[in-house]
This record gives sequence, C-alpha cells and structure tokens, in this order.
Amino acid sequence: MFEAHMVDAHVFRKIFEAAKELLEDASFDCTSDGLSLQAMDAIHVSLVAVQLRSEGFELYRCDRAMNMGFKVAGLLKILKCAGSKDSLTMRAEDNADKCSFIFESPNKDKVSQFDFSLTDIDQEHLQVPEQDYQVNIKMPSAEFSRICRDLANFGDTVQISCTKGQIQFAANGDLGTANIRLQEKNNVDDDGDKISIEVEEPLSLSFAVRYLNNFAKAQVLSDTVSLMLTPKTPMVVEYQIGDYGHIRFYLAPKIDDEEDEDASQSQTQNMKDEDED
Amino acid sequence: MFEAHMVDAHVFRKIFEAAKELLEDASFDCTSDGLSLQAMDAIHVSLVAVQLRSEGFELYRCDRAMNMGFKVAGLLKILKCAGSKDSLTMRAEDNADKCSFIFESPNKDKVSQFDFSLTDIDQEHLQVPEQDYQVNIKMPSAEFSRICRDLANFGDTVQISCTKGQIQFAANGDLGTANIRLQEKNNVDDDGDKISIEVEEPLSLSFAVRYLNNFAKAQVLSDTVSLMLTPKTPMVVEYQIGDYGHIRFYLAPKIDDEEDEDASQSQTQNMKDEDED
Amino acid sequence: MFEAHMVDAHVFRKIFEAAKELLEDASFDCTSDGLSLQAMDAIHVSLVAVQLRSEGFELYRCDRAMNMGFKVAGLLKILKCAGSKDSLTMRAEDNADKCSFIFESPNKDKVSQFDFSLTDIDQEHLQVPEQDYQVNIKMPSAEFSRICRDLANFGDTVQISCTKGQIQFAANGDLGTANIRLQEKNNVDDDGDKISIEVEEPLSLSFAVRYLNNFAKAQVLSDTVSLMLTPKTPMVVEYQIGDYGHIRFYLAPKIDDEEDEDASQSQTQNMKDEDED
Repeated sequence: MFEAHMVDAHVFRKIFEAAKELLEDASFDCTSDGLSLQAMDAIHVSLVAVQLRSEGFELYRCDRAMNMGFKVAGLLKILKCAGSKDSLTMRAEDNADKCSFIFESPNKDKVSQFDFSLTDIDQEHLQVPEQDYQVNIKMPSAEFSRICRDLANFGDTVQISCTKGQIQFAANGDLGTANIRLQEKNNVDDDGDKISIEVEEPLSLSFAVRYLNNFAKAQVLSDTVSLMLTPKTPMVVEYQIGDYGHIRFYLAPKIDDEEDEDASQSQTQNMKDEDED
Repeated sequence: MFEAHMVDAHVFRKIFEAAKELLEDASFDCTSDGLSLQAMDAIHVSLVAVQLRSEGFELYRCDRAMNMGFKVAGLLKILKCAGSKDSLTMRAEDNADKCSFIFESPNKDKVSQFDFSLTDIDQEHLQVPEQDYQVNIKMPSAEFSRICRDLANFGDTVQISCTKGQIQFAANGDLGTANIRLQEKNNVDDDGDKISIEVEEPLSLSFAVRYLNNFAKAQVLSDTVSLMLTPKTPMVVEYQIGDYGHIRFYLAPKIDDEEDEDASQSQTQNMKDEDED
Repeated sequence: MFEAHMVDAHVFRKIFEAAKELLEDASFDCTSDGLSLQAMDAIHVSLVAVQLRSEGFELYRCDRAMNMGFKVAGLLKILKCAGSKDSLTMRAEDNADKCSFIFESPNKDKVSQFDFSLTDIDQEHLQVPEQDYQVNIKMPSAEFSRICRDLANFGDTVQISCTKGQIQFAANGDLGTANIRLQEKNNVDDDGDKISIEVEEPLSLSFAVRYLNNFAKAQVLSDTVSLMLTPKTPMVVEYQIGDYGHIRFYLAPKIDDEEDEDASQSQTQNMKDEDED
C-alpha cells in the first residue's frame, strides 16, 4: 500500500506544469524515503530529476518499494481539477494498475476522486553523481526566466560567463548581439530578490537556450533558482519544492572545437556507463 | 410600438453570451407581460428558454404582441458595443423590419444607436409543462461550471447521482474514472456559497457533458444555479436574471437500455405532441 | 557620435507598438534638435510622423546629423527586453552600421546591451505643411479606440460629422446602421475624461475604419488623442509622447462622387509635388 498526503494539491500540479515540455511519460519510484522521478527528454539532451522526501508530506506510507508510470498529459488533466485550496491524497494498492488522486476542500464538503490508469514505462536510470561546482549562482527565478526568454529572440545559444560578483548572459544572431549583466545583490529586503554569485574560478559556457527556456517554466515552484556550473559538466538548474525537495534539470554545455567535442561525448558516455554498470 | 429600457445593458449581452453556443437565431415574443424566447439547439437535443418580465424593466411598453427575430452573432456584435455603465433602450415600430438598440452613458454624453435588421425565423414552440421535480439542487454557478469543465476531460457522459444531502458527479473514459461529491452546505456567510440539496427520492441520471458545459456559460448571469431532476424527464438548469426573470436550459437524460429508450422517445414525443395540439 | 538617454525605456517601445501595424521599416533622422521619423504605410495610404525633441531627453548629443534605419519587428524584440523600470540609452558612432540600446535597472545591478544592426532604408520625405484645421477635437484616447473598434463591426467606412459641441461617428453595413454621438464635456475632475470639440464650420467626412483602428493603437502613449479635420485634407490623429513630442497619423478622407475624387487625387498629388520640389 502506498499513500501520501500533501496539504497543497497545487504543488504536484506545478511540478508537472514545469516538466511537461520535457516529459511525455513520468515514472515515480516510491520508497519509504519518498517519491523520486528521473527522465531524459524525448531526444535525450536534458535530464529532469524530481525528489520529494517523505518528511515533506503530512502523511506518507509506502509498505513496499514500487514504481508508478503516468502519461504526463493525462496526469495534468487530473491535477488541474484541484481547487485552489484543496489537499491531495495519492493512494495505490501494491501491484495495482491504477493510482487514486483525491482532492479535498478544506472543510471536506467537496471531495473529488480520480482513479488514474498507470502505464508501463521503460525508463533507463542515469546515476548523477553529487559533486562540487566551480560556479554557484542563486537568483530570482523570474529574472532567470525573463533573461532566457529575451535571449531566445537573438540566437539558439546562450553563453553564460561568470566572474567574481558578476554573471553575464549573451547571445547573438541576425538581429545583432545581446548581452545581459547581473551584479551580486545581497543587501535587499526581500530574500527572493537576492543574487548571490560564488565563483571559484571564472568560466564561460554555452547552452541551448531552448532547453533553458523549458527549465525556466519551473519558476512557478519557487521564487529562487540555483545554477551550478563547471566546464565540461552538465549544468544544474535547481528549484526548491517547498519542504518536499527539489526539481533539477541537467544540460550539457555546447562544445565549440573538435577536441572539446570528444571530451563532451566521452563525458556523456560516462554518465551512461555509470548507469549501465 | 415596442419599447423597453433596462438600466444595465450588460444583462442583455450576458444572456446571449450564455446562449450563443446553442442558438444561431433568436426569436423574441414581445407581449405586454414581457419578452420571452424559446428555442431548441441546432440538432434539437436541448432547449433554451428565456423569460424577462415587464416588471423587471425600468420602462416597458408593448402596444401589440409582436415577434422579433435576430441573428445571435450579429446581435452580440451590437451588444458588445455597450459601455460598462450604459443603459439599454430597445425600440421598434409595429411591423418594423428593424429594432433600435440605444446605449446611453450615465450622464448621456455618449449615446450609441444601432438599428439592427430583423430576421424572419421559423421557430416551433414547445409547451414545457411546469412540474415538480424529484430532486432540487441550488449551488454556486461557478462550482457547477468547474465540475462540468473538469469532467469533460474524462468522458462524454456525466452521471449525476443524488442522495439525501449529497450530490455526486461522475465520468469515466480512457484516462480513468472521476467522481466529484458535494455535501449540502447551509451555514455559510455568503449566500452564493450555499449548496442546498432537496431529494424526495434518490436518483441517478446520465447527461451529455457537452451540453452541460454550454449551459454552464450562463454563470455570468447569476452566482447561483438551480438543477431540477426527475427520472425520464428533461433536467432543468436555471439561472436567475436579476429582477427580470430567468434563463432555463432543458436536457433529456441519456438512456442506457432499450426499454428505457422507448420510454424516453415517447416522452420527447409527448413534448412535441403538446406543442402541435 | 549620437547618444540619447531617456528615463523610461518603455516610451520608446510604445511608439513602435503603436506604429508596427503601419511600418515595416523605420528611419530616424537624428539632428541636434532631436529624433524624427516619417513614413507612409506599405500601400501608401496613411502617413506616420514621430517627433522627439532633444529637450525631452535627460541626455542628448548628436554631433553630426545622421540617419538610422531599423527593421521595426527586430527593434520591437529588443525594446521588449526592457524591464518595467529600466532606463534606455541609445548610442551610435558616426557612420556606424549598428546602434546600441542599453537598458539599465534603477540601481544598475542589471545592465542589458543590445547592438542592433542598422538597415539602409529608402524613404521619400513628404513635406506636411502645418495648417489650421476646421475642426479640432480632444478626447480620451481609450474612447476613440473603443469607437473605432466597435464601428469596424458595421462597415469599412466611418463617417465623422461635427457640429457645435457634438461629434458623431457612423457606419453601416449588412448588420444595420451604427451611430455614436459624443457631447462636449468640460466639467470633469479628470483631465483625461475631457472632450473638447472646436468647430469653425460643421463638416462630415468619411475615413477607412481599418486605418483609424491602427492609429488608435497609439492609445498606450497618451490618455488623450487630438483629431484635426478639414474637408479635402488629410485628417490628423495626434498623440502626445510625454515631454518628448508626439506621434501623428495622417489619413485622407474618402471621396464619394467623381468630382470630389479628382479633387482628392490632385490634393494627394500636391503633397507629393511639394516633396519632390
């Protein structure tokens, strides 16, 4: 038996609103520790990983580790039925072919139950090693979305360059060149406005702006986004999900010259190797 | 000579916003008692009936009973020209081929007159007998809209089941099954939040959700909707229109087995017979 | 060297939002007096003229008169990147093939620089003589937009008729006839609500509503619009642009009978002649 109760049903909706551009299917691993999901997008360029710890839930019970596969489009149809103040209970029997989503209004005078058919999903698992990054940035998630959206007008690629106390996003194309610079900003009243830029060593990396734009949709989950960068390593874009955990997006930097390209391929290869081991 | 003046021109617009999905043409019967309109939708499944009593108007005059036919799309173009605080005067000579719609701003510094060509509309009249219903429900119109919209994701049919103090809307399809339960709710500050459920005898009836969704657009007219149900009888969905009257939608329940189908056909037949008599 | 700084970057965006339906290209004449732009729409029916005086800018420097040509669609993409409180600095070297647009947040912690490629634009210049008009109207720009939008439902042509203290907009077509009358309105608290109608001699002129609708988009620039009319002369629709200057749209009246048509053609011809002289 699996059962999990969260006070705000919209948290769950927002996770899939954020990931829907990247994921057609979602496969949750349910263990006594919590729910986790990991998937590469359709053309295997970026990786999405969601972690929801059992402690974040008001009630959490998972008698036996299990896996639940959903069609994301269908799941979203259900999650959109939640009222603005509804709670969510997920419930599934062991080895069941369906999972119940139950939305309850605060005083329980409206109770909506959706029994959603599960889907078998064939999902490979990448082992993403926890590591230290050369650059760690925390910034308002709305600002990150804005910059990605603005720069998408100028080119397919965004170059992110970091030096002490400063981050710069650049793009260029037929229209001309665009260059957006942010300064570290600590002394602000609202924590959500803060920009912190930790740079061990300056770097400059290029990314496909289309993916950043997709990641940026997770802005609905948190006022703040963290960017973690190291050369020749996939960038991490992370949004906290309340007290539950986080959603992380991984995207490898673009490579300019041939030598680097080999390096990147072998690096991606490494990620796969670890998984297959 | 026909003349009618209403303080809030938007009431008239909202009526046709609500009915536009169902009606291509509208034919108003004007008598000294007021304005009334009745029409079946294009494929003769549902019936719309509007009643605006003369007492509701600030000024009302109808020297001779007359009938005015409008193209609804054209009428809406005119009604959308009303300013947010404008009053509406409708005026037509006897046997005229046009009707004037006059919008006036509160201090009359803007006066817009639209002379709208009338259309001959061949409309059969059904006699809908007033009757008692086995179940009478009053609920927030926004909640009814929401439920119809949510369930339309799950299937073509909504099953409405009523027991003492509880109403349940259900649908199912490829996605799974959906089930929304509302409890009676009387002790609320805001009358618009109330849910009253009067059940003479429990029942369970099925309806085409597409039509309920169309009816639900009349939510703009009133915070509250009334649902009246009796087996083998068209359901009534009623919205009050201020002090003027109401708009009612009628929809026959879906029939499952053959025996019932015969019953329903003869019942629909009866409605027509009454009319032809 | 050309450099101009305006506190509110959105002013510049609004100008091109207003003109984008009419202009594909824009060619700014920069002199020590300020920036000006003049262009006919693609099919040479209406004329747009923008005037931004150097005094309106916080900082303005133009060492040598120069001309800068932009693709409007591209320019708008850049201008939309301005934050809601950003200032704008435009900067170009003499004879440069690009112009920099620099947006700065109030405390300069975000600085976005766009180097936009200039375009050679072949633009003929009409000399529009300053003149007195028989009718001068000032009215809320939102009201003018509303009327143009409403009347576009009724026909291609709007007839504007002015008598002492009153202006009337009329249209007719298949739907019927529409007629909107405004009275002079002076005693109002809010200056933006004022309607002033100065009529030397009554007149009645017809215009293509499609163009008026395009002009009316400039409503974002000012709460007030001025209409100036004289028979057989292009109408002027003018919006103030803060302390910088104004945007003006010119549109010749429609001609009904043959005799008048000749008159109009020769009059348009005159405008061109003046230019070619």
